[in-house]
Parts: sequence; C-alpha cells; structure tokens
Amino acid sequence: MLSCSCATVWNTRSSLFRTFTSRYFSSSATVLNERPKAKERGHIIFSGIQPTGVPHLGNYLGALSNWVKLQRNAEPEDELLFSIVGWHALTLPQNPKELSASRMDMLATILAIGIDPKRSIVFHQDDNQCHTELAWILGCITPVGKLRRMTTWKSRLAASRNANDESEVDESLLNTGLFTYPVLQAADILAYRATHVPVGEDQTQHLELSRDLADIFNRTFKNAKRFFPLPTQLITPTRRVLSLKDPSSKMSKSAPDVQSRILLTDSASQIKSKIRSAVTDSIDGVTYDPINRPGASNLLSILAACTDEDPAAVALRYQDKGHGHLKADVTDAVEELLKRPRSEFERLKEEKAYLADVAKEGAERAKEKSWTTLKAVRSIIGLY
Amino acid sequence: MLSCSCATVWNTRSSLFRTFTSRYFSSSATVLNERPKAKERGHIIFSGIQPTGVPHLGNYLGALSNWVKLQRNAEPEDELLFSIVGWHALTLPQNPKELSASRMDMLATILAIGIDPKRSIVFHQDDNQCHTELAWILGCITPVGKLRRMTTWKSRLAASRNANDESEVDESLLNTGLFTYPVLQAADILAYRATHVPVGEDQTQHLELSRDLADIFNRTFKNAKRFFPLPTQLITPTRRVLSLKDPSSKMSKSAPDVQSRILLTDSASQIKSKIRSAVTDSIDGVTYDPINRPGASNLLSILAACTDEDPAAVALRYQDKGHGHLKADVTDAVEELLKRPRSEFERLKEEKAYLADVAKEGAERAKEKSWTTLKAVRSIIGLY
Repeated sequence: MLSCSCATVWNTRSSLFRTFTSRYFSSSATVLNERPKAKERGHIIFSGIQPTGVPHLGNYLGALSNWVKLQRNAEPEDELLFSIVGWHALTLPQNPKELSASRMDMLATILAIGIDPKRSIVFHQDDNQCHTELAWILGCITPVGKLRRMTTWKSRLAASRNANDESEVDESLLNTGLFTYPVLQAADILAYRATHVPVGEDQTQHLELSRDLADIFNRTFKNAKRFFPLPTQLITPTRRVLSLKDPSSKMSKSAPDVQSRILLTDSASQIKSKIRSAVTDSIDGVTYDPINRPGASNLLSILAACTDEDPAAVALRYQDKGHGHLKADVTDAVEELLKRPRSEFERLKEEKAYLADVAKEGAERAKEKSWTTLKAVRSIIGLY
Repeated sequence: MLSCSCATVWNTRSSLFRTFTSRYFSSSATVLNERPKAKERGHIIFSGIQPTGVPHLGNYLGALSNWVKLQRNAEPEDELLFSIVGWHALTLPQNPKELSASRMDMLATILAIGIDPKRSIVFHQDDNQCHTELAWILGCITPVGKLRRMTTWKSRLAASRNANDESEVDESLLNTGLFTYPVLQAADILAYRATHVPVGEDQTQHLELSRDLADIFNRTFKNAKRFFPLPTQLITPTRRVLSLKDPSSKMSKSAPDVQSRILLTDSASQIKSKIRSAVTDSIDGVTYDPINRPGASNLLSILAACTDEDPAAVALRYQDKGHGHLKADVTDAVEELLKRPRSEFERLKEEKAYLADVAKEGAERAKEKSWTTLKAVRSIIGLY
C-alpha cells in the first residue's frame, strides 16, 4: 500500500500556505486590527496536517514554518490548535506501520520546528472522537450534491492511482471517506468554533464548505443563532518548492528519485550533495525566471524563503555569478535553516515518553474545548 | 420539522422482526445448536431502534416484544445490546424538543416492556462516540458505489417528502447522513463485534453491507485476520400490523388519523374505542383472508400475535361469530398485552433519575466493550 502526499486532504504539507497574507504574519498589531468581530475575544486558529512521512523542505517552507510565525505573532487571547489528522490519512490506502511511525514523527517535527505545546494545542485528531461525532451531525445537513461538486477528491484519486489526469479516474474508484472528507474537515474546524484557518488555496473550496455548513447549522436550528462562527481562510504567500531533479513539478515525497527532495532529517552532507546535483541550465549568470529557467529560479526561491526575501531581489546579487556559487549559498542557507529543527527532531524522536505526554495533554485540552462545543450542539439538535 | 417513521434507518420500529426464525426464539436450546462458530463463546446480539415518538402496537408486536423473547431465550454466555440510535434519527429533519423527549421515552419503553438493564446493555448510541469513529474508519473502505446501490435512502426520502413513490425523489434532495447511514449502522454492529442482528427483511441489504465491510476490513489489513465476525441477520416472523382505518397500509405514527393506531400509552377506553371503530367489512362471519378481507384479517393477526397463535387458527374460533365479538376479544387481548407495559411506562417516565442512571450505566458498559474493539482497530490500521 502506498501513502500519497501529492494532493490534499487538509494539508498534505506541500500545499499549505501556498500564498499568504503577509499582513497577518508580519506583526501582531495587524492581527489585532484585522479582527472581524468581537475585539474582546481572541482568534481561534486551527490547522491540520496529515501524518504521511518525514516532511521535506517544501512542506517546511510552504506550511510548517508559517505555523511558527502564527504562534509568534498571536495575541495572548488568541488560541492556536495544530492537529495531526490521522483520520484523513485513511482516505487513501496506508501502510499501518508506516502510518504509526509517521504519526509520531509528525508530532516530533511540529515540536522541533518551534511549536510550543504549552502555548498552542498540539494533538492527534484521532485522539478526539468529538471530530467524528460532529462530522456525523454535519453530514446530516450536507447535501450530497455539494460533495460531488468538490474537485479535490478527483485530484487525490488521480494522484494515488498515478493517473495522468483526473479524467482517468471516476467514482467507481472512490471510497466514502475520500468523498466525505470535507465534512470531517469542517468538523475539525467547527469543533473548536475556530475563526481562522491557515490553509493553501487548493483548500478554498473546502473552507467554503465549512462556512456553508456553519451557516446551514445556524439557520436550521432555531436555538443555534450564530452558534458557529463562519471561519475565515488565512491564505499564505506562495512558497512553492520544486523538485531538484524535475523543476516542472513540486517537491514531493513520492517522487522515485530521493535526490529530488531535501528531508528535514537530511544531514549537512546530504543537503550539499542534493543541491549540488540539482538541475539548472547552461545559461551564463543567474536570473529569476521561473518559466524559462525553472531550476535556477527554484534555487533562488529556496534561498529567498530561507532568508525571508524576495527571489527577484536575491537574484540581483547573483547576476554576475555562476550556478556553483548560488548552489553553495543555497546549501549554506538550507543547512542553517534545518540545522536546529533537524537536531531537535532527532533528539525528540528518542524522547518517546515526552512525546506521549505532549500528545496526551494536547488531546485532553482539545477534548475539553470541543466537548463544550458538542454539548451545546447536542442540546441544540435535541440529543440530550 | 417533521419526524418520519415510515421507512427505515435501523428499526423505525414498524419493520423490525417482520419475519422471524421461530427456531431462534422458540427455545434457548435451539439457539445453542445454531451457533455457527466457537461454541464456547456466546452470541453477541445487537439491535437498534430510533427514538421517534411513543411506539404503537405495530412497533411493539413487530419488534420490541421480540427483544424480550431474545433476552428470555439467551444463554448465560450470550450478550445482548439494545441501542436507541439517536444519530440515525438525524438523517431526516427532527424537531429537537420532540427528539429529546422521544429519546427518553424510548428508553422508558424498552424497560417497560421487560428488557432488563442488568441482563442486557441498554444505551443511547449518541452516548458512545466509538460508533462515529468506527463509521469514519469503515467509510474509508466503503466504495461510494455500494452506497448508491442501497435502496432504502430512496424510500425514506420519498416517505419524508410525502412523495407518491421513489421516482419522485432524486439525489438532489439527499443529505450525506442519509446516504451514508448504512455505514454508521455497520459501525453500530461491528463496534461490539456482534454475531447476530435481529432486524426486519427491509434491512437485509444493510446487513449485507455490514458483512461486506467486516470482510473487506479483515482482508485489507493483514493483521486483521477475521477480526470482525460476519454478523448474521436474525429474521423474525411477520407481525405486520395494519392501520385500523386503512388496512391497505401499515399502522403508522405519522398517519393523520389518530384512531388508526394504538399507542403503547393508550388507556383501556382508548383501546376499546379505536378497535370498535376499526374498519372491517359487511360479510357475515369471520375468515382470515388478508387480500380480500384486510380489516378483519388485521384484527385476527393482532389477536393471534397477542396470544402467540396462528391467525388462521384463531379465525376458526370466530367463523360463526360476528365482527363485534371479534373486536371485543381483540380489545381484551390488547388491553391485557399492553396493561403492564403501559403502567410500567407511566411509572418509569416519572423516574427521571433512575432512567438517567440506566442510560449512564448502559453507556459505560457499551463504551467499555466498544473501546476494546476500537483500540484493536486503531492498532490494526496504524493509528497508535
């Protein structure tokens, strides 16, 4: 059985935060100014990530590093929840042993990159059955037609089957979990009455379904009166990291060539070797031209992401230099970026008791919060 | 909002035990001889009923009274679980206040008819989130096409819309809960690794899905090796009670004429009045002829069910008598049958603390059993 991370159920990592509102992340003051409703109440920020293997550089730059920014810029009254969404991983076939290992690795990764489990609630979705209960309840107000109009199940199915495009897959291959996962995703968010959800653009359709379901619920039950806030999507700026071997496609954990990706666990020498052998072109000098010079532009993008600059601006510094020079600097920057998370990850991976404690405490906090929601939901719908 | 009990999600009562294997119910010895597998292990019998109002005579004779027989005939090592399946009720619109009242009334009813909560596990499905968790997991191995081929959602939808037939409803009216409820039903059963499920013939298709999903699970995960037993349907003999006013249709709680049905809570004088005004015919003498004489035959069926006889045999005693005589005897028999459950129901309804205790204890026992299953399932699929 294969796990697949090409397309997305929640964040299969590479897609998260593809674009982002830099306002939101640039300063905490802006966050405050942006508050849409009650200023006295904090934001509730929820995001999820699937446990499908050690993240690569694309996942880190595209998604996870932004969680850290969110945490850093949050106001004291804001709540942050980061969930490892194991039940979503089941929507495509998984190897149970690998899934179990990935589940714990992902927790170690989230902590290693700097998410503080005292500040944010970090938990395994599958430790909190309130998610599946709410998914059932929301399913009862979700028209099947709305799910059929979702497009991501087709792309996920195509990716999992190595199909060339979505026309090669049809509903005969579809399982109910993959078909209904946007409802579970809505439940993930609404169980905490989250107000803000940082996800990539490819999740816009799902976030809209979450908003729809919140609204249908609020309107269907007369005691519900705006019970669920309509969650706002936090779109994050593009940090699309491409394959080092085939810069026409995204960096991916499922690509056959391991040299095409840098894992968070890669050593300094592995990073060096992979970047040295990255595909570029034979044109003199370095320019940022993603269409015509995707290989070199990808390296510039990676460097710019590491230093939080604009790729075009970075390119100016290299216009008279060779690819070798650029590669050496990218190597240094990536190593600098990953050094600490990598050693933290390696350290945490061994601390199984600590990880279990973090997971347990996170689950307890998540359950307590969502149970408050579910008790109210049950009362509104008549199951009490 | 309307609640509807015409068609079935689990047992909407009228359909349960429509036919039955009298062997199973006639003596406990037969139960033992029928054991399909390990003789040293008892059967695990699971059945569910929706909380949608006070049951009527049709529900009682068709379904609930057989639960009592099952309990009476069970061997000491057999386990019985009877669940009030609130989450299934949500698949059609419900009035929250009515649903809440029905939820407690159904518990009182189950106890009033003689289910012993010390012997059997009686619980609210919605008190045990293991059901929704397992439903999610099973959904991930359920082809959407299998659900589309289920026919009951169409009949339930038609009934809830007061459509003349199923061709008047289509998928555009369908919600995800109604579409996927056979998966939750499978989870209800498999969460306890139930071996036997007493349900009506109209549920055969769903029970087959439960068997299918158990089998798919066992084959998909290499550590699963026959983890789920394939549950056997206990089909119960026809006890189809018809409307007293329109014997071309089943006795139903949603029919506009309250004189058409006898509720478990009806007083002796209400029973008398309703049976006296029951539609018969003007042919002399009484014969059992359901096609040509549905009204009188319905009364004979009711009488036969009350005395556990065959309707045709009962008819012989009335061949020279008038309908008035028959009606008087049916009245006495029904009153005799319902007297004790009715007074028990009225007594129990007031004992709110006791009911809450029974529900709590039942939920704890159910949770403990199903949690054992779910822990094993999580381990098999890799969520640990």
